[in-house]
Amino acid sequence: MTTRKILMAHGAGGRLTGELISQTFLPLLKNRYLATLSDAAILPELPPGRPAMSTDAFVVDPPVFPGGDIGHLSVCGTVNDIAMGGATPLWLTWALILEEGTDMDLVERCTSSAAAAAKEAGVAIVAGDTKVVAKGSGDKIFAITAGLGVVPPGRDIGDHKIRPGDLIIASGPLGDHGAVIMAVRHQMESDTLQSDGAPVNGLVDSLYAAGVEIHALHDPTRGGLKSVANEVAGRSGCRQVLTEGSIPIRPEVSAVCELLGLDPLGLACEGRFLAWVDPKDADRAVAALRKKQSGRDAAVIGRVEAGVAGVAPVILETISGASRPLDLLSGTDLPRIC
Amino acid sequence: MTTRKILMAHGAGGRLTGELISQTFLPLLKNRYLATLSDAAILPELPPGRPAMSTDAFVVDPPVFPGGDIGHLSVCGTVNDIAMGGATPLWLTWALILEEGTDMDLVERCTSSAAAAAKEAGVAIVAGDTKVVAKGSGDKIFAITAGLGVVPPGRDIGDHKIRPGDLIIASGPLGDHGAVIMAVRHQMESDTLQSDGAPVNGLVDSLYAAGVEIHALHDPTRGGLKSVANEVAGRSGCRQVLTEGSIPIRPEVSAVCELLGLDPLGLACEGRFLAWVDPKDADRAVAALRKKQSGRDAAVIGRVEAGVAGVAPVILETISGASRPLDLLSGTDLPRIC
Repeated sequence: MTTRKILMAHGAGGRLTGELISQTFLPLLKNRYLATLSDAAILPELPPGRPAMSTDAFVVDPPVFPGGDIGHLSVCGTVNDIAMGGATPLWLTWALILEEGTDMDLVERCTSSAAAAAKEAGVAIVAGDTKVVAKGSGDKIFAITAGLGVVPPGRDIGDHKIRPGDLIIASGPLGDHGAVIMAVRHQMESDTLQSDGAPVNGLVDSLYAAGVEIHALHDPTRGGLKSVANEVAGRSGCRQVLTEGSIPIRPEVSAVCELLGLDPLGLACEGRFLAWVDPKDADRAVAALRKKQSGRDAAVIGRVEAGVAGVAPVILETISGASRPLDLLSGTDLPRIC
Repeated sequence: MTTRKILMAHGAGGRLTGELISQTFLPLLKNRYLATLSDAAILPELPPGRPAMSTDAFVVDPPVFPGGDIGHLSVCGTVNDIAMGGATPLWLTWALILEEGTDMDLVERCTSSAAAAAKEAGVAIVAGDTKVVAKGSGDKIFAITAGLGVVPPGRDIGDHKIRPGDLIIASGPLGDHGAVIMAVRHQMESDTLQSDGAPVNGLVDSLYAAGVEIHALHDPTRGGLKSVANEVAGRSGCRQVLTEGSIPIRPEVSAVCELLGLDPLGLACEGRFLAWVDPKDADRAVAALRKKQSGRDAAVIGRVEAGVAGVAPVILETISGASRPLDLLSGTDLPRIC
């Protein structure tokens, strides 16, 4: 049996491009907007509210890993970014940059996974593009998504709403995605460690359904909790105080971190989010999240305090009772984790 | 003086990623939606009408060429796709995949060009993402855009509207972009040959302003006129008859094609479009286009006839008076032209 490979002609706009579209993308991603194959997808009028847009490029190495692949990840990443704006994700675009010689099986697998993630999130992939580069000018498959959602009228969240007293909630254990990618790269085996990659918009909806006053939402992707907390501190002008003992981290993730010398607080998630909520609603928020399987380990992991000039903007209160600043590293951290 | 280079850490979500955003992207692309640096850009409510979305991945080699660069091209490509749906382009997302070691100057140049193209088109780049891959896993810079526009209420165009009798108009000379890329790759020099890369939404607006009944719009990018005509024939069920003598092609483009054995009808444009219009409006359409500098060579280049089973769907009536089928090639045509 011959292995089917991606050829340069699959990206050249001719007959093979057409076959890739009609035999792989259309059947797997099927929806009536994509099916017109026009230059732009023309969609039904949006529900009332402000549109939210986001884009994400995915270059994760390896492209297939325990718990997911780059196709699934690419859809989750953009769905989650839209959801972090308080918006309901609706439509996605999906572009691929393929390396010549890549197995067609990999492209099909990633397309199926993207379709499955889109279905789970309740969105449709309505436009796409594929380019092929010569061997050595790419790395198997890069996937780039963009998305459109709508923030319902009256909803306004963001770092400008964060204020001292807010509590910070994690929707689940942190760092699984980053840990699994690093473990795979180092040929470490684990029966239980899997990427957390998943759409989180359903979980966010359950917070709104419970009437929680959400001030801001962020997903801790590249750079993990550490990067998000520092960015939020910078943009909100408020100090972020995290309590180490309350941060849910799986033992398998801690084990990988110890072996590889990584900080779990700097590891990426692709299916978790952090919510800054009004303190009166924090218990209700955690309860609402825990009702769902994907939120069963949700926990309050920190609080917001007034920013003080000259004082570290992000603090970790350690299990031993000490307080230490949680800096943003300038180093390479973890390349190609997503 | 040291040359500033892209490092793996520029894509890792840490301090260098932040510097790239705050020192390069924000100042060059500046707009208030991007400036919030939130996970998703939250935009003002859309004007009435149906949203149009599109995406394009750009891997053009070389990334800088006479008349443009990959940054400029990436914005034009998506603006034009949106405009081809009859929509007014509004918002863009912009993702970069950079190869480690790429000159920061190249990134800055392409960002400036993207900003200039966005300004010319009247759109804003409201969200972005940057990833870095190791040397040899990419090729300097890939740029991926997605866009959102709105089709004004009552406007409905597309291949389903094409009918026998329609005339096909080209907005300008065809193949300049493809020819210039191939010429540069073959170290051919020309003082006058330049990419045609440009936003065409202004030119499309002038057709609507002139009251032209537009049935469909397409930009002949990858695969050129030949690919578009074949795709339109397939989707509309109508035969496309092109008249060779009326197709505007610059002498410099013909010269490159002769030297390199290329078919100008298969060469990509990035700043031209084809319009299928009601025959009663064709003269008015050409006149409206020619009033603008970028449309001064607009011409009727063909007509639509009823499709006949078993007869070639795309025909070229040659200058010598013969008719020959214009097939879609399955070959590699021109990789990495855009």
